Amino acid sequence: MSTTDLTQVTSKRILSGMRPTGKLHLGHYKGVLENWLQLQEQHQCYFFAADWHALTTEYANPSIVKDTIWDMLIDWLAVGIDPEKAVVFIQSEVPEHAELHLLFSFMTPLSWLERVPTYKDQIEQLREKDLGTYGFLGYPLLQSADILMYRADGVPVGEDQIPHIELTREVARRFNHLYRQGIPPLFPEPESLLMPAAKLPGLDGRKMSKSYNNTIELGEEWKITEKKVKTMPTDPARVRRDDPGTPEACPVWDFHKVYSTEAEREWVQDGCTTASIGCIDCKMCMLKHLEAELQPIRDRRAEIASRPDDLRDIVKLGNEKARHEASRTMEKVRKSLKMGYRV
Amino acid sequence: MSTTDLTQVTSKRILSGMRPTGKLHLGHYKGVLENWLQLQEQHQCYFFAADWHALTTEYANPSIVKDTIWDMLIDWLAVGIDPEKAVVFIQSEVPEHAELHLLFSFMTPLSWLERVPTYKDQIEQLREKDLGTYGFLGYPLLQSADILMYRADGVPVGEDQIPHIELTREVARRFNHLYRQGIPPLFPEPESLLMPAAKLPGLDGRKMSKSYNNTIELGEEWKITEKKVKTMPTDPARVRRDDPGTPEACPVWDFHKVYSTEAEREWVQDGCTTASIGCIDCKMCMLKHLEAELQPIRDRRAEIASRPDDLRDIVKLGNEKARHEASRTMEKVRKSLKMGYRV
Ligand code: SF4
Ligand code: SF4
Repeated sequence: MSTTDLTQVTSKRILSGMRPTGKLHLGHYKGVLENWLQLQEQHQCYFFAADWHALTTEYANPSIVKDTIWDMLIDWLAVGIDPEKAVVFIQSEVPEHAELHLLFSFMTPLSWLERVPTYKDQIEQLREKDLGTYGFLGYPLLQSADILMYRADGVPVGEDQIPHIELTREVARRFNHLYRQGIPPLFPEPESLLMPAAKLPGLDGRKMSKSYNNTIELGEEWKITEKKVKTMPTDPARVRRDDPGTPEACPVWDFHKVYSTEAEREWVQDGCTTASIGCIDCKMCMLKHLEAELQPIRDRRAEIASRPDDLRDIVKLGNEKARHEASRTMEKVRKSLKMGYRV
Repeated sequence: MSTTDLTQVTSKRILSGMRPTGKLHLGHYKGVLENWLQLQEQHQCYFFAADWHALTTEYANPSIVKDTIWDMLIDWLAVGIDPEKAVVFIQSEVPEHAELHLLFSFMTPLSWLERVPTYKDQIEQLREKDLGTYGFLGYPLLQSADILMYRADGVPVGEDQIPHIELTREVARRFNHLYRQGIPPLFPEPESLLMPAAKLPGLDGRKMSKSYNNTIELGEEWKITEKKVKTMPTDPARVRRDDPGTPEACPVWDFHKVYSTEAEREWVQDGCTTASIGCIDCKMCMLKHLEAELQPIRDRRAEIASRPDDLRDIVKLGNEKARHEASRTMEKVRKSLKMGYRV
């Protein structure tokens, strides 16, 4: 296993994608996008909307991609992903990814894909989606093609994605071994850049996820957010205003840990355990910070959404940059495979 | 199962490919190319050099493709494949095939591929090639993409390939079912055009195949062919000139059945069983016909090979025609998958 601490890496090429399968929420922001923001300052980043990956699970309902992909791209820009710094593109607009995936498929043992730990888990978890497909098995190999296409040095991942990067390293090694004998390897072996686990739970204390219906969407109206927070569950022991509570047993406390000042957190600890503050007071304090974070994002969202042509131009340019790089890689790949016979 | 007699089909769109994994021999000519010649007169044919398919088994030795692909294309034209009538192209020059294959992969159950009868057989037969790869399992799905890309009505196949066409029909149905609800289906279900089994064996009486070293290559010099025939085995019972023989026990007889006149065949039957002719006499009669067939092909071969630029132009134009058709199909595919969000 090979993972790298983000802070230890100097300027490298980084690739990361996100599947357009629903509206982005605060979990995506704190868990992934804040990471991207940090990465784009220091590295050459390629961020892509993984529409083909979305189809691996959503093939029976492909409309979800069109319904969410542009909102997702708007969210990226609204939180500060900067197309001057990072290449922002749509996977399917770079068809070379499909070609590289196919060429990799010829040399990749089935067993490498069958043993990826997420494979059987996910089929089990998403049983209603019928994921016993050829493409779902090949999903991590498509990721390998995505990553190696840009000869990325690093890929930000959660713990569960580390085996996918391991696979990518094996694919790179196998390609270099089979087709680059006596010449320098074509593909670097990318590092896993382990992202810290999400500190922010969903409104009910479980992982924030659309399927739990416990999210705060980046694009929703402030009134909605306010209402969600006001009605979110608290420590079940605080039934009445004068019952003392335990912040550690309350999801609101997790939000305070992320957003509030130390003084405020002391105020919560003290007020909650002595019943000297009410849950609404406690939530209002947290909401103030949430609003300070979300409102500017939502303003930028509205602004970006109001200029759809500019947005399209940004993505168009990103697609072109990605295709340029992809076609360079594919030329080298074809040459490695002795495909110089093509006209 | 759905197969169609070639003679029963009126003008349709036909697709067929050949893997560039070695020099073409008489078995390819009599078994496949003669069929193509007949098809191109009546149908709109797409004939392609399946270089990606070659890599499914030859990934460890990709040079074989570059070493044989142009010779194969020369052979096609030399026997009379007419680029004015048929579209002749190279698979990898139409990258849309990889994209369609990928999109099909998302909706195709693994079990459909696992149960293709050739799959386990071939892995077993070609054990030294390590075919337990993801791409080898997906090989028939790549074929489905090849076929459906041109919305072919028919595919000439040998008996063992019928399950691949069945799979293609299932893939077409599934796509139409998932993505063409309430609108006309995009893909026709192609028919298997069953080719008659090869009548011409190899020089040793087994199936003509490079791996048995019993072939007459289309491009070899006449002297070589002559020598091969003169030394090919005959009925083992005819040890000496005056031992009578049985044509049915002799591979030379199979050649007579394909090439000689009825009078000549009577002469062989009579002469062999009464030992009134020698095996060399018998072979010389057959060689005369073989020469009459092969010499014009070899002359055209030399002529085509002497104008490599013209040949490249022919294939280039074929590639363009194929790409044009492929891009039309892919537009419809993407629209069916609601991918209108692309810029
Ligand atoms: S006071 Fe705050 S931390 Fe305590 S239960 Fe209420 S919301 Fe939770
Ligand atoms: S005479 Fe002809 S058919 Fe008979 S054994 Fe000789 S080659 Fe064969």
